[in-house]
Amino acid sequence: MEVPTLYDYYRSSCSWRIRTTLNWKEINYETIPVNLLKDEQKTTEYKAINPFQVVPTLKIDGVTLTQSIAILEYLEETRPGKPLLPKDPIKRALVRSLMQAIVSDTQPITNLRVLKYVEEARRDEWPNHWMTYSFHLIEAQLAATAGEYCIGDEVTFADVCLVPQVFNANRVKVDMTKFPIIQRIYNKCLELKEFNMAYPYRQIDCPDELKEK
Amino acid sequence: MEVPTLYDYYRSSCSWRIRTTLNWKEINYETIPVNLLKDEQKTTEYKAINPFQVVPTLKIDGVTLTQSIAILEYLEETRPGKPLLPKDPIKRALVRSLMQAIVSDTQPITNLRVLKYVEEARRDEWPNHWMTYSFHLIEAQLAATAGEYCIGDEVTFADVCLVPQVFNANRVKVDMTKFPIIQRIYNKCLELKEFNMAYPYRQIDCPDELKEK
Repeated sequence: MEVPTLYDYYRSSCSWRIRTTLNWKEINYETIPVNLLKDEQKTTEYKAINPFQVVPTLKIDGVTLTQSIAILEYLEETRPGKPLLPKDPIKRALVRSLMQAIVSDTQPITNLRVLKYVEEARRDEWPNHWMTYSFHLIEAQLAATAGEYCIGDEVTFADVCLVPQVFNANRVKVDMTKFPIIQRIYNKCLELKEFNMAYPYRQIDCPDELKEK
Repeated sequence: MEVPTLYDYYRSSCSWRIRTTLNWKEINYETIPVNLLKDEQKTTEYKAINPFQVVPTLKIDGVTLTQSIAILEYLEETRPGKPLLPKDPIKRALVRSLMQAIVSDTQPITNLRVLKYVEEARRDEWPNHWMTYSFHLIEAQLAATAGEYCIGDEVTFADVCLVPQVFNANRVKVDMTKFPIIQRIYNKCLELKEFNMAYPYRQIDCPDELKEK
């Protein structure tokens, strides 16, 4: 059986979702770094692997999978052990709703591609504004659903998606004191080795000056 | 059994995804219009229903569901007849990948909320730029996966998500001659009553001057 390959970038929040899930599911994988700052996702070679020109891409089971949410769902369907989605359809809908509030309504508006297209004077303010905006909504939702984690007391894909978004928020100086539930869940998740090993500053392509052991 | 209720806005592409799917699954539903231009999604009453302050919201089976993708997955899991996801996990991943290329990488960057925050002089150019950008990527992916529809010859959630995005693209004057596969699939889907009945200009909250019979 071939070892799965993750096309990855240490600071990509979408890639971090996959790293956490592969760790959670105890799937060994190899990393091929794709440096987004050098536009390596736009090379002819990479475009042939991922027409969307983004990370992550996962090669697994003889196929090449793109888009982080599609990959997460695939891993859950094919590796149902240590589930990251509840069994009950209503609870699954709750998890997926929170996932989408992050992966659709928050992350894409503030990613590097979009930020480069915002006029320069607003590039600090723009991501702070949108993450703060979304975190207010997510905090309100978590007030109704959170236990130890986002949805009750089990780790789910909602947590897998939330943690990298909080990391992004810290980078753009979002005032996290406004979001005590999000902050608490973030801290709690990072105590888990599956999240912690997936932390950007522990990845092989992280510059030495940022690297954590 | 209570009739499901859709909190809807005729021109919302996220709502259209749900309308098509409810039609496809032959689920009768009632509509409660939420006028986004009047910020009706921000009322205290609506926030209690949907903390994310967006449409759609679907009340069904005694629960209130939010975020269109979570709702689509719920409908597929609880009403598996007339499937909109293939059975094979790899094909499911292909469908979900294309869905996310639309619902995460395209729609959120160009929605009303974001557009209002873009400086006024760029409000025509911004959505055209991002939809054109995404459609190039999606067209490249469809070249590999499309048959009669986005993924092979069966209607899937990828089509359900693509059609409203093309409608949005037309509104902001994207040059669709560059995207023959997308255009062909759009035309073909709109021949189907499930998509056609869900068309914005056939909805009850559509202004009279736009309404189509």
